Amino acid sequence: MSAPEMLAVLLVVVLGLAATVSGQADGLSVVPPGPSVHASKGEVWPKPSSTKKTAWFYNLRPSSFQFLVTGSTCDVLENALTRYARVLQREAAVGRALARQEQRAGRRLRGWRNDPFFGGYITSLRVEVSACERWPYPSMDESYKLLVDVDEDAPDRAPTGRLTARSSWGALRGLETFAQLLSPSGDGSSLLLNATLVTDAPRFPHRGLLIDTSRHFLPVEDIKIELDAMEAVKMNVLHWHIVDDQSFPWQSSLFPELSAKGAYHPSLTYSPKDVLDVIQYARLRGIRVMPEFDTPGHTRSWGEGRPGLLAACHDFLGRPDGTYANIDPTKPENLDFLKQLFGEVAATFPDPMLHLGGDEVPDFCWDSDPGVRAYMENRGISGDYRRLQSDYLRWLTTEVQRLNRTPVVWQEAWQNGNFNADDVIVHIWLGNAMDLMNQVTRRGFRALLSETWYLDHLNTDWRAMYRIDPQNFHGRAEQLRLVEGGEACMWGEMADDTNVHSRIWPRAAAVGERLWSPRTTTDAAAAAPRLEELVCRLRRRGVTASPANGPGFCPR
Amino acid sequence: MSAPEMLAVLLVVVLGLAATVSGQADGLSVVPPGPSVHASKGEVWPKPSSTKKTAWFYNLRPSSFQFLVTGSTCDVLENALTRYARVLQREAAVGRALARQEQRAGRRLRGWRNDPFFGGYITSLRVEVSACERWPYPSMDESYKLLVDVDEDAPDRAPTGRLTARSSWGALRGLETFAQLLSPSGDGSSLLLNATLVTDAPRFPHRGLLIDTSRHFLPVEDIKIELDAMEAVKMNVLHWHIVDDQSFPWQSSLFPELSAKGAYHPSLTYSPKDVLDVIQYARLRGIRVMPEFDTPGHTRSWGEGRPGLLAACHDFLGRPDGTYANIDPTKPENLDFLKQLFGEVAATFPDPMLHLGGDEVPDFCWDSDPGVRAYMENRGISGDYRRLQSDYLRWLTTEVQRLNRTPVVWQEAWQNGNFNADDVIVHIWLGNAMDLMNQVTRRGFRALLSETWYLDHLNTDWRAMYRIDPQNFHGRAEQLRLVEGGEACMWGEMADDTNVHSRIWPRAAAVGERLWSPRTTTDAAAAAPRLEELVCRLRRRGVTASPANGPGFCPR
Repeated sequence: MSAPEMLAVLLVVVLGLAATVSGQADGLSVVPPGPSVHASKGEVWPKPSSTKKTAWFYNLRPSSFQFLVTGSTCDVLENALTRYARVLQREAAVGRALARQEQRAGRRLRGWRNDPFFGGYITSLRVEVSACERWPYPSMDESYKLLVDVDEDAPDRAPTGRLTARSSWGALRGLETFAQLLSPSGDGSSLLLNATLVTDAPRFPHRGLLIDTSRHFLPVEDIKIELDAMEAVKMNVLHWHIVDDQSFPWQSSLFPELSAKGAYHPSLTYSPKDVLDVIQYARLRGIRVMPEFDTPGHTRSWGEGRPGLLAACHDFLGRPDGTYANIDPTKPENLDFLKQLFGEVAATFPDPMLHLGGDEVPDFCWDSDPGVRAYMENRGISGDYRRLQSDYLRWLTTEVQRLNRTPVVWQEAWQNGNFNADDVIVHIWLGNAMDLMNQVTRRGFRALLSETWYLDHLNTDWRAMYRIDPQNFHGRAEQLRLVEGGEACMWGEMADDTNVHSRIWPRAAAVGERLWSPRTTTDAAAAAPRLEELVCRLRRRGVTASPANGPGFCPR
Repeated sequence: MSAPEMLAVLLVVVLGLAATVSGQADGLSVVPPGPSVHASKGEVWPKPSSTKKTAWFYNLRPSSFQFLVTGSTCDVLENALTRYARVLQREAAVGRALARQEQRAGRRLRGWRNDPFFGGYITSLRVEVSACERWPYPSMDESYKLLVDVDEDAPDRAPTGRLTARSSWGALRGLETFAQLLSPSGDGSSLLLNATLVTDAPRFPHRGLLIDTSRHFLPVEDIKIELDAMEAVKMNVLHWHIVDDQSFPWQSSLFPELSAKGAYHPSLTYSPKDVLDVIQYARLRGIRVMPEFDTPGHTRSWGEGRPGLLAACHDFLGRPDGTYANIDPTKPENLDFLKQLFGEVAATFPDPMLHLGGDEVPDFCWDSDPGVRAYMENRGISGDYRRLQSDYLRWLTTEVQRLNRTPVVWQEAWQNGNFNADDVIVHIWLGNAMDLMNQVTRRGFRALLSETWYLDHLNTDWRAMYRIDPQNFHGRAEQLRLVEGGEACMWGEMADDTNVHSRIWPRAAAVGERLWSPRTTTDAAAAAPRLEELVCRLRRRGVTASPANGPGFCPR
């Protein structure tokens, strides 16, 4: 650029800025017609570690396309191939419908056959897995490599696809990427994708979504919709906050009274079959189901089916006032009950992690229950409710470890507690999160982040969630390594099946990308068109994701 | 620290102090199990002007029940009777399903036959309308009287129902009340209702809901769901903000290019048949459809199909910069176009009111367009864009009055304008609303309120909306009489068919009650159980209303 050119550009920039200011004196701005953000085409969410694309592109017709397993196989992989074959068919069907509408409206359809970069028809994707695994686990290998290109060795130099992964989990993630690279051909005939090389692996092993089925019940069909959406954005932990103060929908086989009396209604419970159904559906998508049975607070509904379990609040004259709060851990029969119950939980939920809650434990009731007071006096810890709490949680974590489960606790349990570094994983949700992440990991604990990722905070938009990074604190390398990831949390006070999907998506996808993609993937403006595309993609798969960026549309 | 944060801290401090006394030192509270608010049974939303209920109750079996028309009739009434017969059947069916579940869970079902207050079986509701009308209008009579009681004159003293109204509109409202008085009998057999006398009439004539089909398209089926919900809460104006900057989905027969080029997609438009379908569906429910064609701002999408309509923004060298803002009212051909277009609008939408917008009109583009500048210079009004705006809107309102339509404008058009009291109805949405209501009515203008009633403000809960009263200003009696009512507004930037119903309902119902019920109906705590019941009732009618008050459930 010559000096006069530079000057001219500079002038335009400066005057442009001035114009922006002077033109918007009334706070209004020029609104262009059309969507506020135009969706990308065939871009992947979450963004892979490395993507190389060329201008060459190929055509894929689902009817003459197949997945070829060339390595190890198992039900996870076979099921995924069937599922993704359907995804391709549906994408093509939507493309056909759109083209018909465009045609009816008298628009010229896009031609691609004579495009100089058209490289032929792709008829297969070879899927090569070294070791096909059947159950997802916390350190599972989700890496994969995907190459779509002409095969230089084939006599006809036909385009071909190849997906390689060490485990079935990487294959699942690679299949999702492959499906997302495709976009309608524009003439309704088929799908197109570019010559592409993707090398990909997650940044964090724990990429979760919390659902709360106590404040409002969620039918199994709706939980499955969440699992479908999670698979689409490569999230891998369903944190099932299954019971709480308000209701106890989980059917225990040992203690059927818990749900018989603690559920909102007999129709609003999860039978053993329902739970298994969710776990299997999740397993086939490489998603772990980590249940949460939050104690000693948040257990009010437990008391309905288990009289004596909760400490009874007493009035100032020492009479029970009819209200209850925490579990009373001073009664041996209660500890025995919990031992049995958590044994059943561990037998029901195969995941190695078990969330024990431990948050928001109030002192009252403990403070007024004569039994609890007497117990504490006998042990010389009168009035030290923090001690009572931490003793209880130490006991519980030890029990749970005996069941071969790694306990996870909310931050208060750790703050009030007395744990060793390997005892628990600490889940941060409140306050100065980065300072807490630093403290927790400095003491050698593993950590999960959920602060800012509360989906029930309706004014927190996806960009705010996207900005957060769980390693954004000044910690040593070994501290940063203790960050396991995090979770988007859909607390259920105001959410049920009427609005839960549109509240979770697309915002949880921002968390999904933050936890999967490289640390440097932080440009929200660059991400917005991909998120716009993701929203329509999720809808085509039956997930009612709501608008991401403002005015716009999904062609239908 | 932001203001909300400061408030939160302050709250914590205050509650902490209070807790020291009550024993809630950690800011936590006892959470009872079960729903946060228990739903009422057979209570009406919006609350009628006067309801007298006795302990006597009657049984209604939809299969042996009929509506008897004893006065004037018409398609509005006949259609409503068919519709409400279906509502009764559905309510009974849900009651049956619930009883089956209770039974399966081993619970004892409620008996009512031996209840000393059981007064027999009601087999008919006589509906007597003095003058059955076919088209709803702004001053229509929606009053009714409903009496359900034993008929002292009948030889068998059987219970009977009688609904009387001057117009079909009152009959519609009374039928809705009748349907809401019913609740499942508990044993799955039928429905129950108390001996009741309701005398009812709306407080305000204009009880609206605004939908925005420009920022996101809403399929006709979803608009009909809104109309179903509006009928259930006796709202009577669908304010259809049909086009705006982003898209022009309305198919004009005179100017088909407007939607052909201005819609998001050829599939996302409203054909004349679609519009008629909405208007008829609304008419049968006593709901007026008031369209809004907002000018001279908010018209960016109009320009796509109508080159030359919009003022072109120019850069500092006097070259068009490719952006556009307002309609250019200085070109005679544009005024001619608008005259024709609004003629078609009036021919399409029969409602006597037509919303002309007039909000958020920016100066720029007008300010840089040489044609506009020259025109203004010639008329000696250079730089007076407020004058240009008000001249334009005066011209437009005159044209619209010639079409026998009462124009409605947003507050800015009135503030910047130069209208006489009978020219326009003023719609308040921004700023110190009560002060504006006072100003507007003091000058003799009729007014509508929407401030605080913006459903796109997600943190405004139903209680905040419920607190607002459009007559809550110090005005003389004749001023208060100029308050026509108001509207809940569902602006569509972030809402489409994935989330629009759950965002509108139940919050819009709070506005519905405020505008229908007596001024003294202000106790939100007393209203909450009725709203909880309404949410489940709306769901049974296919409206995905979201949770109203917190944790809870609708039996299913």
